[in-house]
Parts: sequence; C-alpha cells; structure tokens
Amino acid sequence: MATLILHGGAGRIDDARVDAYERGLRAALDEGWLLLDHGADALDAVVAAVATMEANPDAFNAGVGSSPTRDGTVECDACVMDGRDGRSGAVAVVTRARSPVALARRVMEHSPHVLIAGAGADALVSEPIDNAELLTPYARAQLERWRARRSPPTGSATVGAVALDHHGALAAATSTGGVLGQWPGRIGDAPIPGAGTYADVHVAISCTGKGEAFLRAVTAKALAERLAAGTALDAALARALADVAAMGGSGGLIVALADGGLAWAFDTERLALAWRAGAAATTREHVAVVTSPSVVSVSAASLP
Amino acid sequence: MATLILHGGAGRIDDARVDAYERGLRAALDEGWLLLDHGADALDAVVAAVATMEANPDAFNAGVGSSPTRDGTVECDACVMDGRDGRSGAVAVVTRARSPVALARRVMEHSPHVLIAGAGADALVSEPIDNAELLTPYARAQLERWRARRSPPTGSATVGAVALDHHGALAAATSTGGVLGQWPGRIGDAPIPGAGTYADVHVAISCTGKGEAFLRAVTAKALAERLAAGTALDAALARALADVAAMGGSGGLIVALADGGLAWAFDTERLALAWRAGAAATTREHVAVVTSPSVVSVSAASLP
Repeated sequence: MATLILHGGAGRIDDARVDAYERGLRAALDEGWLLLDHGADALDAVVAAVATMEANPDAFNAGVGSSPTRDGTVECDACVMDGRDGRSGAVAVVTRARSPVALARRVMEHSPHVLIAGAGADALVSEPIDNAELLTPYARAQLERWRARRSPPTGSATVGAVALDHHGALAAATSTGGVLGQWPGRIGDAPIPGAGTYADVHVAISCTGKGEAFLRAVTAKALAERLAAGTALDAALARALADVAAMGGSGGLIVALADGGLAWAFDTERLALAWRAGAAATTREHVAVVTSPSVVSVSAASLP
Repeated sequence: MATLILHGGAGRIDDARVDAYERGLRAALDEGWLLLDHGADALDAVVAAVATMEANPDAFNAGVGSSPTRDGTVECDACVMDGRDGRSGAVAVVTRARSPVALARRVMEHSPHVLIAGAGADALVSEPIDNAELLTPYARAQLERWRARRSPPTGSATVGAVALDHHGALAAATSTGGVLGQWPGRIGDAPIPGAGTYADVHVAISCTGKGEAFLRAVTAKALAERLAAGTALDAALARALADVAAMGGSGGLIVALADGGLAWAFDTERLALAWRAGAAATTREHVAVVTSPSVVSVSAASLP
C-alpha cells in the first residue's frame, strides 16, 4: 500500500497551458511512484516528484519557470518534512539553485538548522546557476503584463507532493517561486513547516494558494491538530479553507493519511492535481487540472 | 483589566548579567504598561516592550546586543501578530534595522506581505544603520569564545511580549538575533506566525528557546489549537514543552488569555520573565530571572 499525491498549484490556469500541466503532473507522478514502487522512502518520492515539476519549463511556478519578483529576479522557496521524526529542511529567497527542494533536503541533512534564507542558502548550492536560467520566456512575458497593468497574478502554481510509502512513513514537500510581482525577499507559506508543508506520523500536507493567508492561518499544522483531535477529514478540510478565506485568501491543499487514505480540497477556479494509490500490482490514479471547488476524500478501503 | 507578560529568553543566563536582565525587563514592562494604562492597543504595548528590550545593550539577544552569526554579522528576526484579525508582519535576516520589531510592524501595515527577509527587508528600513552598531563588546566576546571552543551558546535570550488590552484585544511580538554562531541566513521560530509568535481572539503566545525544535513542533499554533479544543492550560503547556523536547530542543513560552489570565512555562535553567496584570489602580506584578523549570498559570480570578 502506497500513496502519492501531487499538486501543481491552485488558481487560474490558462486553457492553453492545461495540457502542459497535465503532462508535467504525470511525469512527476511516474517519477515519484517508480521510487515508491521500488521500496524507497516517502521522503525520496516527494523530493523526486517536486524536483521533476521544478525542472519543467512549460508549467508550474517553481524552480525553472518561477514567477519573478517585481524586480525581475526569480526567488525560490521550498520545504521538506519527514513524518517519521518531524525533521524538516527549508530554503527561502534562493536565486541560484536549479532544484530548491533538493537544497531544502540538504539543509535538513547537512546543517544544524531548519530554515535558511537568501545568500546564506545560495552559498549551500553545490552547482550554482545564473538566476536568468530560472526565468522562462513565459514568466518574463507574465511580468511584463503585470508591470503594464499591475494585474493580479493568474494563480500561484506552487507545486507540492505528499506520500505514504510501503514502510508506512509519510513525507511532504512544497516548492514555489512565490507570487508574480512580489516584493524582493517576500516569503509565503510554502517553506514554512506547519504553514504550507507538514508531515508527522499521522498525516502529510502540502498547500498552495495565497501564501500570506495560509501563513497567518498556520494551515497545515492547524489541520493536523484538528485531525488528531478527532475532527472528521472532510470537515477539517472545509475548516482549513474557511480559515484561509477568513484571512482574505484562497487556495488548495493535498493530504495523505497513514492508513492509505488521501484527500484534496480547493476553493479556487482550478487545481492541478495528480494521485496514484494502492498496492503495487493494482493502483487507482487520477491526473487532471480539476475544476469545481470541492473537498474530496478517498478512503483507504475504496482503494485497490 | 489588562495583562502584559514579557520574556527575555530561556537558557543559561550568566549570574553577572542577572541584574541587567531584571532592569531591562522592568524598563520594558513599564514602557508597555504605560501604553496599556492609557488605553493603547495590545499591539502598541507589545511592540513598545519588545523595542525597549531590543534597544538595551546590556542584556537580551535582540536588536542591539544580538548574537552574531559565525561570520560575525548580526542578523535579526522579528514578528508581530494582532489577535483581533490575525494580521501579522515579520522580518528575517535583517542587518540594518535598529528595531526589527518596528520593521515587522511596518511590513504588516505597509506591504501586501507577511514575511520579508534579507536585503528586501533591509530596503524597508527608514533609517538604516551600520550592522556594527548592533554588535556589542559582550556579543563580540561571546563570538570569540564560541570560535575558540565551538562551545554551544549559553542561552537564546530571544525577547517577546504578549498582552491583553483594556478593549479585550490580544497581541504578540517576538524579536531575536538568533543563535550564536548560526549559519548566515538561518531563520528560527521567532519570526514565524504559529511557531514562535501567535495571537488570535482567545490567546497570545511568544516562545524562546531552540528555534529549530519550536519551528518543527509549530509550537504556538499547536498550543492555541489544543486550548481551543478544550485542553486545560497547564496540560497544554506541558505538552508544548514535551513536543519541543521530542524535537531535541528546550525553551520557554509566555501566554496571555482573553479572560485576563496568564501563564508561562520553561524547561531550561532559567527564564527571564516579567508580568503585570489587573485593573488600572491595583495590579499584581513579578519581574525576575526565574529558576526551577515549571509550568505556572495565574487565573484571572486571582488577579486584582
């Protein structure tokens, strides 16, 4: 029994890009599932899936293709959390990492710290790249549109993954370029354990949406605490979105449970979603840019 | 009825500095209480109290006198949260602000964001100072000792304040220079809403201690959720410290409740603590570097 769920962001996703999103989700799902299928840890799977989406230049706001700040630079944030022991690593405002999520894992495994930002994080990149390599023509065009009209961003397109491995361990990872036109140095919920990313022995969670609202609502940890206190999954997810809405935001989140169940919820126009779950031989899966804001849970009993 | 509680850090505090800590706590308590007494908001009181401790060069690891990184630079983090609406502002890795907590409030009130780090945050300082102005001879000597022996830091000495004002509103603020000898760019729990700092309509919380453990435990929000779910205050505080210990850390926290009650808890050698509570004419107060790790709550009914 294993579970892998990915999101590629919540919000408006241009019709012309839906195919690219679905292809990107499937590639990441295959990458992560291959690892799980071969007995790898949930942590390996979520990092591989998120890194695959970070490397995709045709979709997603993370790694290559991140939304630039108002100054035109790309600043990335990422976090990993291992549900087995609550260890976590995160980076914020990194400008020279091809894979921010891999750097976050490096912080977890090779530093005494959890969260490192800015030049201090860039200094840990083993093969630093030029910031311009992260800026795609699409992202540059979006920035020009934003500068001309100061229009709000069309969606966060943060990426994330949560997984349950065959050993029963959970993990979560999230990576983002932030908000189009954000102030330099701005950090949202994605790299913050308990806000946009969280895993313990019961549940793994990754969020996407208006980061400021998720940060103030401490969305992931609040959800985990309510589930631990006995709140039903669907009710806890609805409450999570309501809390974010009360802070003036919207978005979505994905959840993997220790019993093999999974869930997602969003209140935006679209959510880029992919999941696969079940035993090794037979699995159930779903890859789509979904519409119709909803709270959906899939019980372990309903899976092959 | 109003309440103001401050901490000046948890850990080892040198005997020779206890007097300076207690004088610093009293000055900050007087500053914050004066505002509350004149009908100011809890937010004004916690910012004033924390700013007073940041400006104190003789005690505390925040603002002037912060512990430097291993490179010898001072990097400050701070956060404010307004319990009325959950608005929050925070800065991290700022090097040119005399009062990081004032800058955090500025982020809350004058930016669309919650958390801004590094050069982007320094750019918001109205009167930037030279980083060397934040480095005291004592902090420099501590760094030299650390470099020579690579000894662990002697205590976090982060500062924080929580308050209930006469209008019934709660607020929290925390400020820190981080951990002596930390890696450049390292961010702990202090500037993270829900980790080291949190306020809503029921409770306001500020933490101090090993930031990595508080960050992974998402200490403040977990405590707030458990109180909301009906866990008794003392039990919830003991659980908060146990969760931090399970993550390999130790420290302390202070709590103000909407009913006027207050509490603190710590599992380190010492906690620098000050509080005043009660009606305008008669108050009860306590200013001390306390020893004997404990969980202490003071009910509203026991206050004048």
